[in-house]
Formats: sequence, structure tokens, C-alpha cells
Amino acid sequence: MNNAQVAVLIHAAPLPSLEALVDGVRAGRRAMLARAITLVESRKAAHRTLAEALLQALLPQTGRAVRVGITGVPGVGKSTTIDALGTHLLAQGHRVAVLAVDPSSTRTGGSILGDKTRMARLSMDERAFVRPSPSAGTLGGVAARTRETMLLCEAAGYDVVLVETVGVGQSETAVADMTDTFLVLMLPGAGDELQGIKKGILELADIVAVNKADGENLPRARAAAGEYRAALHVLGGREAHWAPPVLTYSGLTGAGIEDVWSQVLLHRERSRLAGAFAAKRSAQQVKWMWTLFDDRLRGRMRADPVLRAEVPAIERAVADGRLAPTLGASRVAALLGV
Amino acid sequence: MNNAQVAVLIHAAPLPSLEALVDGVRAGRRAMLARAITLVESRKAAHRTLAEALLQALLPQTGRAVRVGITGVPGVGKSTTIDALGTHLLAQGHRVAVLAVDPSSTRTGGSILGDKTRMARLSMDERAFVRPSPSAGTLGGVAARTRETMLLCEAAGYDVVLVETVGVGQSETAVADMTDTFLVLMLPGAGDELQGIKKGILELADIVAVNKADGENLPRARAAAGEYRAALHVLGGREAHWAPPVLTYSGLTGAGIEDVWSQVLLHRERSRLAGAFAAKRSAQQVKWMWTLFDDRLRGRMRADPVLRAEVPAIERAVADGRLAPTLGASRVAALLGV
Repeated sequence: MNNAQVAVLIHAAPLPSLEALVDGVRAGRRAMLARAITLVESRKAAHRTLAEALLQALLPQTGRAVRVGITGVPGVGKSTTIDALGTHLLAQGHRVAVLAVDPSSTRTGGSILGDKTRMARLSMDERAFVRPSPSAGTLGGVAARTRETMLLCEAAGYDVVLVETVGVGQSETAVADMTDTFLVLMLPGAGDELQGIKKGILELADIVAVNKADGENLPRARAAAGEYRAALHVLGGREAHWAPPVLTYSGLTGAGIEDVWSQVLLHRERSRLAGAFAAKRSAQQVKWMWTLFDDRLRGRMRADPVLRAEVPAIERAVADGRLAPTLGASRVAALLGV
Repeated sequence: MNNAQVAVLIHAAPLPSLEALVDGVRAGRRAMLARAITLVESRKAAHRTLAEALLQALLPQTGRAVRVGITGVPGVGKSTTIDALGTHLLAQGHRVAVLAVDPSSTRTGGSILGDKTRMARLSMDERAFVRPSPSAGTLGGVAARTRETMLLCEAAGYDVVLVETVGVGQSETAVADMTDTFLVLMLPGAGDELQGIKKGILELADIVAVNKADGENLPRARAAAGEYRAALHVLGGREAHWAPPVLTYSGLTGAGIEDVWSQVLLHRERSRLAGAFAAKRSAQQVKWMWTLFDDRLRGRMRADPVLRAEVPAIERAVADGRLAPTLGASRVAALLGV
């Protein structure tokens, strides 16, 4: 036995059997859920095979949660909002899982403040499950692990899943693609302050909620809501059956949080009535499969020594205008044997 | 010789040699350009190989045109606008190619009015080259052929390429991905009329131009421009160095057409100064290569009898929630041997 093998033995607790994992997650045991999440986050080939079997076995117990994506610029009060919303939902008898997609995070560094500090009430409650973003990597990889973790949480009986994103790169699109309702949090303020909004964010919004509608900020929050309402009117809605509402609320006092949740449920209900809910979920699943397939292909390109050398050279030649994209695609296809 | 071979001989004029095509296109001979476009539009394997060689040979002569994407809802007056803009550019000494991406078109049916009727002045002028959309097919296929046609036109000396799209599905994104500046045409009108705008369209706009700013419509056109200006202000810009302007013009009288073109050139100049122009072109080329690669992979899935039977069954199982997307992706990868 070499040192590396010894290190594995010391550091890795023996993996539970597939049966133990399936039963443990279904029974809603937090420790087993955490083990299952660690498994789906692993990049080892043997772990991936077990993870796939686990997800397939749990599939009938998934899909029942209300899946809500939440985004907003730094400083908008995402953690406070999720803490207030989650606490409200626990009081109503829900079990709440909070996940995150943050491709810039590292497991060790984590967010500036740990999740326990960020969501003080939720993280103390046994009925809630707060999980930080999978460690830094490609957005595709981080989103993949988060989506699988969402399925595990659903199988473990969490009936509300809140997926938070910091809005780096295309992370909002990834989160919108894995949730039913996408909630965009905004700050009060008008004019130039509005310019800071990430392009495309209102595009994805099913609900826009302006935070900090309390005390002196109340008039500014209402004015901002009016501006967003006008912009959304010009933009048109993402779905024919839903005109995204613009609300004001306070994460600090909790005022208006109930209305935000009512709109989430109303959006869900309208989607169901329009026949759009099941269609969206199906489309998300198929899109998801193809994304995973593409990731696998890119993974093979990175792993294979010939491809790892050749593909970037082809990309550079295409980028520099030395190689026609058509010919570049042919060369990559020939290298992969497809 | 069987009947099919005889039919090919009868219907297909002999293909010019690669050298003849390269020389003919470089010399700007319209007949040879048309032959070259027919070649890149062909789906036959032998033609594809020749088309790839042709595009590679002409690559050094490509990339110098001002590439402008143009979209707008039906009735906005795209043809009138392109006719007016194109005529203005010819008068300035430019050579103008007009292409289209319309996945819903058929070569035989064509647009309701033929291109010669639609662009009366341009299509009569020897210095302009008007080509309808490649025949109906997937958006990917139609966009691929249009992009290659754009390169051929550049090699033939056209220094302005206008790519028109009708806005079906994701066709605007495809056109924005192959052009430098994306021009969105709008109608005068306010309130509910604005709701008809396709979601995501303002998102892509580098310039918004409200048509029909003539006669009685002038005040309504100006009011609409004001609304779009406000909405774009809230949305923020696509690029840090450019706040998309909103103009009014008249395709009918030509008033304001010059300003639209000035903004195209200004956008180009600002992009260059910000170092964004070359980066965007490079990124477009690389993205383009991967799109072609994906198309090729999908093509193989359709052509291979086993894949053609199995892949849709896997997709259905994933869509119905019977198969985990992760496992579905593994099965597709196994079938393809990647």
C-alpha cells in the first residue's frame, strides 16, 4: 500500500452502500443526505457511477418541491431575504432546503461570512437544510452538482428548495433553468443606480421584489418598483400566461415577505392552469441531459492527451482567423472520432 | 449509369474547380459568387469538403465588411428600411450584400413578396447583392449557411453586409452572433402595442430605431422612442463602452437613415477603441466552430440507425421523469462512443 492509498483510507470514511444511501435519504436523515451530496459532488469515476444509480433510484421521490431561484446584486440582502422567507415557510409547516450556485466560491474560503452567520435563524432550525455552493469550478460543473443536490433534498422530503445565485457570468440562467419561478431582488434607488443591473436579469424574472422597503427607504423603494414595472411592461413577459409583478418588501422587518411567497404560488398555479408547468419541467430535464452530455465531451477533451494538446491549438487558429470555423469543427470531430 | 446518376448529370451544371471558384469570387464575379453560395448550401458530403476548402482559401479576404444584423416584428418595414439604407450606402460608394436568416422560409415559396419586389431599388443595382434565406431547415443549418455566405460576399468585395432576420425562435441571437452591430427596428405606438415586442430583443440591441417617423406618425414615433430609451436605461447596456441609442427615422422618406448608419459606424469605432471589436469577432468565430461541431454530432445521431432509434427514446424517458438526466447523458455518450 502506497502513501496515497493510506491517505485515502485515513481521510475517507467508508462509503455507505447504495441501499443504505437510498433508504437514508428517503427517511430524511440529515447525515445520510450530507453523505449523498458529498457523493454527487465527487469527481471520481466510481463515485459518479454510484451517484448515477442513487439519483435514478430516488427519481420517483423527486420533483415535488416548489423550486425557486433567487438572485440580486451584492448588497441587495439575499441572505437576509432567504432567512426571512425560509423562517416564514418553516412556520407554515414547510421543510426548506437552501442551495447556491456560485462558480467563484471555494469550499474552504466560502462566502465572506459563513452560511451559518448569513442565515442565522434558518441554519439553526432542524427543518431547514442550508448547503453552500459546490466548490469553485466551471459554471456547468457547479450547476450540475447543485441540480443533483436539489433532487436529493426533494427525495429527503424538503418541499421548498431555494437556489441562490450571486450572478456571476451565466449563473442566473443556470439557476433559472433548474427552478420553476425566478425571483429577482432589487435595491431601492432610481436613475443612475439602476444602471448597475446586470443585463438580461429582468429578462429572466418571474417576480421582481424591491428590498429595504422600510423606514426612510420606503418612498425610494416604491419609486424604484414603479420604474421596474414600466420597464417590464415594455419588455413583455417571458410566458404568455404571466406578467411578472413588481413588489416591495423588507428583509429586515419581514414586511411583504408573505406577498412575495403568495406570488410564487400564484405563478406556479397559473403555470399549471396554462399547461406550462409540466412542459417546462420536461424541457428543463432534457436540456439538462444534453448539458451533461456536452460536459462529458469537454471532459474527455481535457482528459485525452492528444485532444488536450490539439483542441486549444485549433481554437486559437479559429480565433485568430487562420482557420475557417467549418474546417476547425471538422478537425475536432475527426480527433474525437465522431 | 442508373436513373439517379442521369438525373444528377442533367440537373447539375458541372462544378467549377476550387481554383476557378477562388479566383472567380475574389474577382467579385456575381455568377461565380452565386455558384459558390450554392456550393456552401449543399448538403452533399463531396460538396461540403469542397466548400470547406473554398472557405479556407478565401479566409484572408474575409472579415473586412461592416456586419450589421437587422430585426423587427413583421410590418415594421424591414425591406423598405434595408432598401433605403442600402441605396444610401451605394451612393456613398459601398458595395452592399443583403442576406437573411429565416428558418421558416422555403426556397420555392419564399417570402410573401419576392426579394426583388421587397427591395426594389437595391435588387436592381449591380453593386448590391441580395440573397434570400437558405431554404427551410433547422435554425442552426440556416444560420450556418448564411454565415458562410457572408464570408463569400466579403471575399467578393462587398464591404457592408446586412443580415436580416424575421425573429422566429432564436434567430435574432444567431444573427447577433454573426454580426458586429445589431439594429432593432420598432414601430411607433405606446402602451399595449409595446407588449408585442419579443422578449429578449431589446437585450440584443446595439441600436434601436423607430420607423415610420413621418407625417402624422411623427409624435407617436417620438413618444415610443422615449419609452424605449427609458426601458434601455433600466436594462443597462450589453457592453460597458456603449449605451444603445434610440433613434427615429422613416424608411419611406429616408429621413433619419443617415443617422442610423452614423450610429452603426460610431458603435464600431467605440468597440475598436475599447479593444472589444477584435475580441468579439474572435469569440464569435470560436463559438461558431463549436456550434458547427455540435451540429455535426446531432447530424450523426440522425444518420446512424441505432442512434436515431435510441436517442429519442432516451430523451422521452428523461422528459417523462423515468430516467435521471445524468444516466441519460451516460447512455447517449456510450452510444456515441465518447
